[in-house]
Amino acid sequence: MTDAQDAALLAACRQLPVVGLLPAGPRNAITDVAGLRLGHCTVADGDLQTGVTVLIPPQDNPFMHKLPAGLAVINGFGKSAGLVQLAELGQIETPIALTNTFGVSAVVQAQIAQCIAANPECGRSLPTVNALVLECNDGYLSDIQRMAIGPAHYQAALDSASTDVVQGAVGAGRGMSCFQLKGGIGSASRQVVVGEQRYTVGALVLANMGKLADLRWGGQAPGAALERQLQLQLQAKLAAGEQAGTAVGDGVDKGSIIMLLATDAPLDSRQLSRVARRAAAGLANTGSCYGHGSGDIALAFSTAYTLPADAATPMPALAMLHEAQLDPLFRAAADAVEQSILNALWHAQSVQGRDGHQRWGLQDLCKD
Amino acid sequence: MTDAQDAALLAACRQLPVVGLLPAGPRNAITDVAGLRLGHCTVADGDLQTGVTVLIPPQDNPFMHKLPAGLAVINGFGKSAGLVQLAELGQIETPIALTNTFGVSAVVQAQIAQCIAANPECGRSLPTVNALVLECNDGYLSDIQRMAIGPAHYQAALDSASTDVVQGAVGAGRGMSCFQLKGGIGSASRQVVVGEQRYTVGALVLANMGKLADLRWGGQAPGAALERQLQLQLQAKLAAGEQAGTAVGDGVDKGSIIMLLATDAPLDSRQLSRVARRAAAGLANTGSCYGHGSGDIALAFSTAYTLPADAATPMPALAMLHEAQLDPLFRAAADAVEQSILNALWHAQSVQGRDGHQRWGLQDLCKD
Amino acid sequence: MTDAQDAALLAACRQLPVVGLLPAGPRNAITDVAGLRLGHCTVADGDLQTGVTVLIPPQDNPFMHKLPAGLAVINGFGKSAGLVQLAELGQIETPIALTNTFGVSAVVQAQIAQCIAANPECGRSLPTVNALVLECNDGYLSDIQRMAIGPAHYQAALDSASTDVVQGAVGAGRGMSCFQLKGGIGSASRQVVVGEQRYTVGALVLANMGKLADLRWGGQAPGAALERQLQLQLQAKLAAGEQAGTAVGDGVDKGSIIMLLATDAPLDSRQLSRVARRAAAGLANTGSCYGHGSGDIALAFSTAYTLPADAATPMPALAMLHEAQLDPLFRAAADAVEQSILNALWHAQSVQGRDGHQRWGLQDLCKD
Amino acid sequence: MTDAQDAALLAACRQLPVVGLLPAGPRNAITDVAGLRLGHCTVADGDLQTGVTVLIPPQDNPFMHKLPAGLAVINGFGKSAGLVQLAELGQIETPIALTNTFGVSAVVQAQIAQCIAANPECGRSLPTVNALVLECNDGYLSDIQRMAIGPAHYQAALDSASTDVVQGAVGAGRGMSCFQLKGGIGSASRQVVVGEQRYTVGALVLANMGKLADLRWGGQAPGAALERQLQLQLQAKLAAGEQAGTAVGDGVDKGSIIMLLATDAPLDSRQLSRVARRAAAGLANTGSCYGHGSGDIALAFSTAYTLPADAATPMPALAMLHEAQLDPLFRAAADAVEQSILNALWHAQSVQGRDGHQRWGLQDLCKD
Repeated sequence: MTDAQDAALLAACRQLPVVGLLPAGPRNAITDVAGLRLGHCTVADGDLQTGVTVLIPPQDNPFMHKLPAGLAVINGFGKSAGLVQLAELGQIETPIALTNTFGVSAVVQAQIAQCIAANPECGRSLPTVNALVLECNDGYLSDIQRMAIGPAHYQAALDSASTDVVQGAVGAGRGMSCFQLKGGIGSASRQVVVGEQRYTVGALVLANMGKLADLRWGGQAPGAALERQLQLQLQAKLAAGEQAGTAVGDGVDKGSIIMLLATDAPLDSRQLSRVARRAAAGLANTGSCYGHGSGDIALAFSTAYTLPADAATPMPALAMLHEAQLDPLFRAAADAVEQSILNALWHAQSVQGRDGHQRWGLQDLCKD
Repeated sequence: MTDAQDAALLAACRQLPVVGLLPAGPRNAITDVAGLRLGHCTVADGDLQTGVTVLIPPQDNPFMHKLPAGLAVINGFGKSAGLVQLAELGQIETPIALTNTFGVSAVVQAQIAQCIAANPECGRSLPTVNALVLECNDGYLSDIQRMAIGPAHYQAALDSASTDVVQGAVGAGRGMSCFQLKGGIGSASRQVVVGEQRYTVGALVLANMGKLADLRWGGQAPGAALERQLQLQLQAKLAAGEQAGTAVGDGVDKGSIIMLLATDAPLDSRQLSRVARRAAAGLANTGSCYGHGSGDIALAFSTAYTLPADAATPMPALAMLHEAQLDPLFRAAADAVEQSILNALWHAQSVQGRDGHQRWGLQDLCKD
Repeated sequence: MTDAQDAALLAACRQLPVVGLLPAGPRNAITDVAGLRLGHCTVADGDLQTGVTVLIPPQDNPFMHKLPAGLAVINGFGKSAGLVQLAELGQIETPIALTNTFGVSAVVQAQIAQCIAANPECGRSLPTVNALVLECNDGYLSDIQRMAIGPAHYQAALDSASTDVVQGAVGAGRGMSCFQLKGGIGSASRQVVVGEQRYTVGALVLANMGKLADLRWGGQAPGAALERQLQLQLQAKLAAGEQAGTAVGDGVDKGSIIMLLATDAPLDSRQLSRVARRAAAGLANTGSCYGHGSGDIALAFSTAYTLPADAATPMPALAMLHEAQLDPLFRAAADAVEQSILNALWHAQSVQGRDGHQRWGLQDLCKD
Repeated sequence: MTDAQDAALLAACRQLPVVGLLPAGPRNAITDVAGLRLGHCTVADGDLQTGVTVLIPPQDNPFMHKLPAGLAVINGFGKSAGLVQLAELGQIETPIALTNTFGVSAVVQAQIAQCIAANPECGRSLPTVNALVLECNDGYLSDIQRMAIGPAHYQAALDSASTDVVQGAVGAGRGMSCFQLKGGIGSASRQVVVGEQRYTVGALVLANMGKLADLRWGGQAPGAALERQLQLQLQAKLAAGEQAGTAVGDGVDKGSIIMLLATDAPLDSRQLSRVARRAAAGLANTGSCYGHGSGDIALAFSTAYTLPADAATPMPALAMLHEAQLDPLFRAAADAVEQSILNALWHAQSVQGRDGHQRWGLQDLCKD
């Protein structure tokens, strides 16, 4: 390929594409769904580049007021906690936590402890709590074997939560790789009108999947050009006597992506599972075809109503959307997920971590 | 949008994109997988624009020598026959037939009759045969209520079978719509090397889904430009006193797509299900997000070995591919499906059918 | 075993066990769920011993007013029509038909024709209809290869429908075998109280599965004793110069069972799938462990509300039962299915059919 | 009911029923499958009545030599770790651990640490390990909120492993309840002949489900008689001035059962999933119908071959069993699970735990 073609592709990567035709919400983030808050705890300390991210539902005590939810296991190479029960009951009863693969257990324990503190009968006269902790493997940049995540990181993420959404190499996204570049946290939202009602679909991704050759960016396929750019940067660093990190690291086949979808539309669990499945379309549009070693998990929930823990409390009596009204929500889900992945790449700065491994942020790599 | 922008988008639609980086097989069709043959029976008669397509496995009597297979129900709004048993047993035991939704029963009956003729104990000392007939709804162009498909059409499709693959508005694809343009049959293949072995993945689609606004063609989004072009063509016809057909018809939400994947790689049923799931990525890359009313079904099978009907016959003893070797096959499956859908659009000529309904072939619509 | 032990076991088989502790409804049949009607068309003519059974929902036009439903594929060796879409959308939109395996297509066509007659836009501006026809293989007693079932049989079953439930060797059950005895249609109901509300769970089975050795009857295992009794009857007939039929025929591994569950409790599709799964418990309690070649399918639906076909019609706004209130319904479903299978055996008279094959009715076999 | 009837039912409970007609292996335990070992660590200390049980595969390093496996989620109200990946890949790569619900995380961490110790590249150039830890809630007898299980308990269970199988209130079974009696660990095996080859199916259960009224014991329904017996024992203790514990405690709806099946038959993952599903039949035959709040999980694996972690290692090339040969294995699986549950009840001694809660061992309760 000519240098001019590469230059054009790199130039294209200096613009953030806008996915689809639907309008975004005011924040273009999952917190456009009213009541949601997002928090991060970031660990950035040499060989440890990791963290925890938490999406907090509107309810103070979701264990007693559960949210309807649905699941799509697009590729099941993953170790997330809480999915089997979510699939059976169609409910979420904790905040949704994201972290690295070997950090899941510590966050599960933190969620259990928190639930017991708020509900002293949890595990006694009340059922045990179904902790919900999703994960990707950040072992390329972070020393995952040190199992550095503990309950305090989860608490710190909770404490930091707000409606402001920080994206990129933060929280659970700190050590994640995406298309062999720096990945991490991305978010977006889309609005649709069904009948006379406006609904919001918000997405939040922990993006850690993909091979650079497959990347699609605004209709372009800049993978090969970016690979050449990585080589140039590497050589420049070496020439300057700096520690250069790897150009295109291995480990990419052990990636994964977690895709959370939230909406204020009244949907039941089966319908939410249908929404969650559309995350696969947004993911594909970035270039992924759900690699063997990738835990590609999507989860959708609605904030339109809650389900009481107590069988004596009246159940909600509200009309769900008609099945034939779901198409705009499907499109919104796919587009919001795609936009979220692009946003994760766009916002992620370069990070150097374990054993000198480095991932370039897309903007760092492509800047003039 | 300016006329110049529209012109550029139309020009882009006058070229067939090549999907991905993998090489195609010699025919760039599913019959690149050795032993497979494809046949069509096309009904093109006024209000009837329909037909039957059949993909024939290498075995003369697949009821006695079954093929390993896997299934992915991407969106289950469909009436195909044979899927429940395929999911349970991981086997195909008939040719794979495609037709319109209300034609399924007649083709099922034809397959049963054919199986009994070849296996007189079918349904007696041998089990009943699991007919495999997949469908889309071509009711926009064809008078589906007449239930015009009969056993003879299936037989004619069988009789016409060869390794030559005719694409577009033929066979079961005769009356199908795709992105509100003329859709139908498309096929493609991709080759991969695993270890030192070359394998082929072939795809065949019956494409009947999508909204024009969503179409992605070679990285472009020409939907709006094509909608304007449809309006121009409509006005030109009306001005010329011709019956014009609709510009952008309704009925598109009742579309569907059937995606067949064949490979000569030795895979078991579970692995083939994983391959089939990657059809969702190829489909998404054309612009679909699996509409509510769309029966989006993918099925993958291997020709590398057969499974005997008779328990006394020795089972095959061969090594399957390692799970970590599947990624190239996943990419091939996604790319071959995407290419097949583009090919269906590319090859489909315009068709006028029931009640003056018309679908434009992409090339007819975009020609200078 | 001593003759005395056999005699005791045969005596036990001369009483119909009552399953469980829950009360039955007034008819102890699926029509205890208000509004349901059941019809049979029986073909009993030499080598043809087959038929059609149909369960009719309360709605005149279920295509426009669909019923919420759920599915459990306990063992998927079966060719029933309509299950994939039912699983996706959680809806039933036709009467539920039962027939023999090779008769499915004809009944599908009859359901399509009937739906078009009632809804002239079916397959045009309205979607195609999802025919729902479930099957077992009655090929041991009936010449299934003649494909004797046609639309008229379906119509006759509809025409005969009432709240009276005839059980045994009738309708679709005419040619079915169960535990190598005569099987067929069985039904039962159970009532539960949730909160202050009474609900009914009704079951209807088409029972065609099982090996005699496995039969459990009122806590007993009379299989071996019944096998000896079959031999005695055979010898008596031979001694009398009669055509004796087989004692214990082959073909039993190709059996199946369809288990329909209806309730007036307000449940959504996911909850109904959970109810349907409990059919596996009732089935197991009769001695089956879901044989390889058995299509063991359960389907549950609610009559508490309907879902409009038209998206402009308001959706129902009613409270579903709380998840923790489902246990009584689960028990009712399991018990009603078990009782239905026992009832099918109990009511089925002996039938002689194809090639002199015979199945003994349990009461015929065990009478003093 | 008369005292005589109760006495007869209690007498029946003083005999351990033998389930089915198939022969057991020499140990009548899961360790009849060659190479398997079982270990327990029991915590029995006042308010803590809990533990860990581990089933160890024949391979020293199962992370490098994985076992083919299949899964059946009969009711998904559970928090076990490792199931999503097991379902996707059909593989087990660690020992299989059992513990209480809130102990899962600690054992997951122990498994991760152990895997890293044996495979220093785990999570780096090798994928992360899929810890496999299954659970039931023993919170009725044990103070689950104390989260008392740690890595040392897992190690102790490993260290104690042998082919001798101790059943009842031991290991993870220490605090479990079953049919409101004392439950826990049970095991059994059955042998079948396929062709000329003998295969063993072994089962191991962690039994913590069921309501006493539903119990089936050797064809009898002694639940009500046992409830009366519990009241008598309670009154006797109170009369004697002892702390009596509850007669029939609450908490039973939060029960669960884990059912592990092992076989030396050569089966692939799909076939093993089919075997696992038959656990539902064995479970039902003890009286359960899979309560809402019960995590009823079955898992089956084969020791006939291993799958290499390294894609460069040749894959096994051996013939699986023919699908039509699975019926004896299905029966063996159902019977071994049923027998295991009966064995768990049979061997479990009475235990008193948290807050004076008590569960009676069946033999303790029924002794003369």
